[in-house]
Amino acid sequence: MSARTIAVDPFDMVVFGATGDLAARKLMPALFRRDLAGQIPPEARIIGVSRSRLSREEFAGKVGGWLAEFVSEPEREPACVQRFLTRISYVPLDAAGEDGWDELARLLGEAQDRVRAFYLAVAPDLFGPICERIGKYALVTPLARVVVEKPVGKSGETARVVNDAVGAVFDESQIFRIDHYLGKETVQNLMALRFANALFEPLWNAGHVDHVQITVAETLGVAGRAGYYDNSGALRDMVQNHMLQLLCLVAMEPPTSLEADAVRDEKLKVLRALKPIREGNADQATVRGQYKAGASPDGAAPGYLEELGKPESQTETFVALRAEVQNWRWAGVPFYLRTGKRLATRVSEIVVAFRPVPYSIFGATAGPVMSNHLVIRLQPDEGVKLWLMIKDPGPGGMRLQHVPLDMSFANSFSARAPEAYERLLMDVVRGSQTLFMRRDEVEAAWAWIDPIREAWTNSEQPPRPYTAGTWGPSAAVALIERDGRSWHDDGY
Amino acid sequence: MSARTIAVDPFDMVVFGATGDLAARKLMPALFRRDLAGQIPPEARIIGVSRSRLSREEFAGKVGGWLAEFVSEPEREPACVQRFLTRISYVPLDAAGEDGWDELARLLGEAQDRVRAFYLAVAPDLFGPICERIGKYALVTPLARVVVEKPVGKSGETARVVNDAVGAVFDESQIFRIDHYLGKETVQNLMALRFANALFEPLWNAGHVDHVQITVAETLGVAGRAGYYDNSGALRDMVQNHMLQLLCLVAMEPPTSLEADAVRDEKLKVLRALKPIREGNADQATVRGQYKAGASPDGAAPGYLEELGKPESQTETFVALRAEVQNWRWAGVPFYLRTGKRLATRVSEIVVAFRPVPYSIFGATAGPVMSNHLVIRLQPDEGVKLWLMIKDPGPGGMRLQHVPLDMSFANSFSARAPEAYERLLMDVVRGSQTLFMRRDEVEAAWAWIDPIREAWTNSEQPPRPYTAGTWGPSAAVALIERDGRSWHDDGY
Repeated sequence: MSARTIAVDPFDMVVFGATGDLAARKLMPALFRRDLAGQIPPEARIIGVSRSRLSREEFAGKVGGWLAEFVSEPEREPACVQRFLTRISYVPLDAAGEDGWDELARLLGEAQDRVRAFYLAVAPDLFGPICERIGKYALVTPLARVVVEKPVGKSGETARVVNDAVGAVFDESQIFRIDHYLGKETVQNLMALRFANALFEPLWNAGHVDHVQITVAETLGVAGRAGYYDNSGALRDMVQNHMLQLLCLVAMEPPTSLEADAVRDEKLKVLRALKPIREGNADQATVRGQYKAGASPDGAAPGYLEELGKPESQTETFVALRAEVQNWRWAGVPFYLRTGKRLATRVSEIVVAFRPVPYSIFGATAGPVMSNHLVIRLQPDEGVKLWLMIKDPGPGGMRLQHVPLDMSFANSFSARAPEAYERLLMDVVRGSQTLFMRRDEVEAAWAWIDPIREAWTNSEQPPRPYTAGTWGPSAAVALIERDGRSWHDDGY
Repeated sequence: MSARTIAVDPFDMVVFGATGDLAARKLMPALFRRDLAGQIPPEARIIGVSRSRLSREEFAGKVGGWLAEFVSEPEREPACVQRFLTRISYVPLDAAGEDGWDELARLLGEAQDRVRAFYLAVAPDLFGPICERIGKYALVTPLARVVVEKPVGKSGETARVVNDAVGAVFDESQIFRIDHYLGKETVQNLMALRFANALFEPLWNAGHVDHVQITVAETLGVAGRAGYYDNSGALRDMVQNHMLQLLCLVAMEPPTSLEADAVRDEKLKVLRALKPIREGNADQATVRGQYKAGASPDGAAPGYLEELGKPESQTETFVALRAEVQNWRWAGVPFYLRTGKRLATRVSEIVVAFRPVPYSIFGATAGPVMSNHLVIRLQPDEGVKLWLMIKDPGPGGMRLQHVPLDMSFANSFSARAPEAYERLLMDVVRGSQTLFMRRDEVEAAWAWIDPIREAWTNSEQPPRPYTAGTWGPSAAVALIERDGRSWHDDGY
């Protein structure tokens, strides 16, 4: 147990959808790693719940298999794997029926007074039925919590239905709407950089920031989940949640503390200050695209319609947006957002581009004086870089170089940066909601997203085709270039 | 020849005091390295001048010996050493008489139309006689330059005498008053950081800077030059020139270009804005000290009086000052200066200490939020570091760390950073005066220094004794601590 790791209180973690992909790839490995780090107390239990008729041993066997697949070998200390598997229970249960609920209630009843978290790793249409039964079987204790995976709704209206269903059983202080982007180390570091240093905040405004870019680019297509995706699209799948959350963390005022509501109040203010995009301005402020056959890192890639297996779809696999935050701090500073599938590179990052120096004193021989950029990379290679001009060491004259300064110090620390789910799961146990979305945030985000969708639906312009393996439709380049700016593609 | 090195115009460099220590340790090695780098054209000549009756061959032999001693072996390419030595001429000459001057005139007459630099590496009382004769023998051509080593005078009055004597023969545009601190790579980089980045200048003022520290600490005593030193002292030897020049570069307004007069006008404004320190406030604003026996890196060290061989001296071997720049940018921001011999460590650096964050949102568990510092290290280990708070990567909660960010990128560049004298000698040949002091600067510096000396002379308080190997008298600590601040001693 590392000296810096403080064990959380004893808890029961009930994972609905325990045989699903998220449980296998993320939740169980994350819980295991926290166990390995000594953060999970001996009494803690992990209770898998799903429709499958499995015994405890069969499920524990599955979990052992997932750890072997998704946790690196040096981390899989046999003694710790053994200990972790003894924590595992399993209850076969009908989420929308009554089978198995008595058994779950009995199991939980053995430890009434400890933290109890229900993780809903299931399709959103089951949120309501599950919560209803959690209520009906009296499983909500004062220390109970529920974790809800995205998407919370498909629109403001459907989000309200989901939020009402969950909220009928749980108090808002018990509801953890998870967005794993907020658990990333670099996103946390952004908060430290902004608010623990006197250097950045005075520059963090329209007077000194030229614009902000947020990119979430994937090289994968939708294969395997085309059916789900076709009902969603990039705007709902990425922009409404992840990208707007990142935008909020960049743009928000300093909260009075890191307490959940202090932070979420500030994020909410940003969401509510977003300039509406609707029929009148959607053509100028948005670009949507859909990939056709092209390339991927693994070779030739089919188009979206081929993967979907339908002759036609209006679903966007790419969005570029020009957002504006209408307040004193950010007036006139564009926030360019883009996300898409089958793009040229896999990268998620935030770029804060500062204004150029007002005047260069250096003359032509020094070379161009380029603007300072702060680049917050979420994946791959999490890190924060500040691009600065410095003097190129040399014997005479002043020659300038644009160089990236590593501000993440991956090398300064021996500790492995934990995965986002590790941090977020422990926050659930601790009851810390700072990194989770509050109901009003989710609904404010939809209130901005819905009119964009509406404008698209009423538009005659279908999604613009782009070749798989490129940076999206050329209109996305035009979106930023007509402002005299460029997408930050350095080093991809 | 490196692709980045551009050869200067053909020149004759006449070194007065050619058999002295500066020529041996600095000037010849610097010229050799520039030759090695391909910056010195084939026709260039280096003409040694001194009283010693040496032949060209004897002097070239001496130079070869110095290169062997002061240039590292891998740099001493035999072919280049050979080439360099063929550039060497020698004229035995009586600086204050007439012997040898005709011969020097004849030699220079062979190349009337090239750059001609007279480097006065001699005692200051010879500046006048030498310049007089340079004039008398008609050696001043339109492309002639004279390089004057510190000290330029011992006071405002004596500086004017020296400047008048040199100025009687050379135009101010031909006079290069050298301060090798200004040729340091990191000092150049300070200009690049300040004026090629939009990030620093908005913070570079009383609103965001808490205070500035400039330290020039030596571990050596005065042995060998005690006689000279006892007539000078730390204030004249270090503060009047090096330290005030560094203060100017930190404090000056952005010049309109890097042209010599644009930069020097701005430095002059800083010198003239220094709040006077005189009898009324010298007790509060200054501390002077003199070392007694103690320790040095090489073992036990004698006291100053023992090295001097006298029972008594009022000469200070240590100064600490609290300076203030009285203008809009810097009002209320103290500039703490300290320098001394036989101190605990050898280090020269500038620390710009930014104000603390106005409020910490992070709470007690995050650890203290420490202030940002920019540390510009001149020696040893030239470099620029920015101390920032970042998030300590970890599984939960927000823990902050104060870490130094390397902004000098020694590792980003394969080129060896040139020695200050290399840069400055080539600037002399190019005629670039940006890194050299103008007459009015030198005299403005004395105008601030003289009243301090006067106040000390009239004071009943002698220099405070401090033990060799410490950080000076405790009163120097009190000087900064009574403002609620501390000397930056991290990592020494």
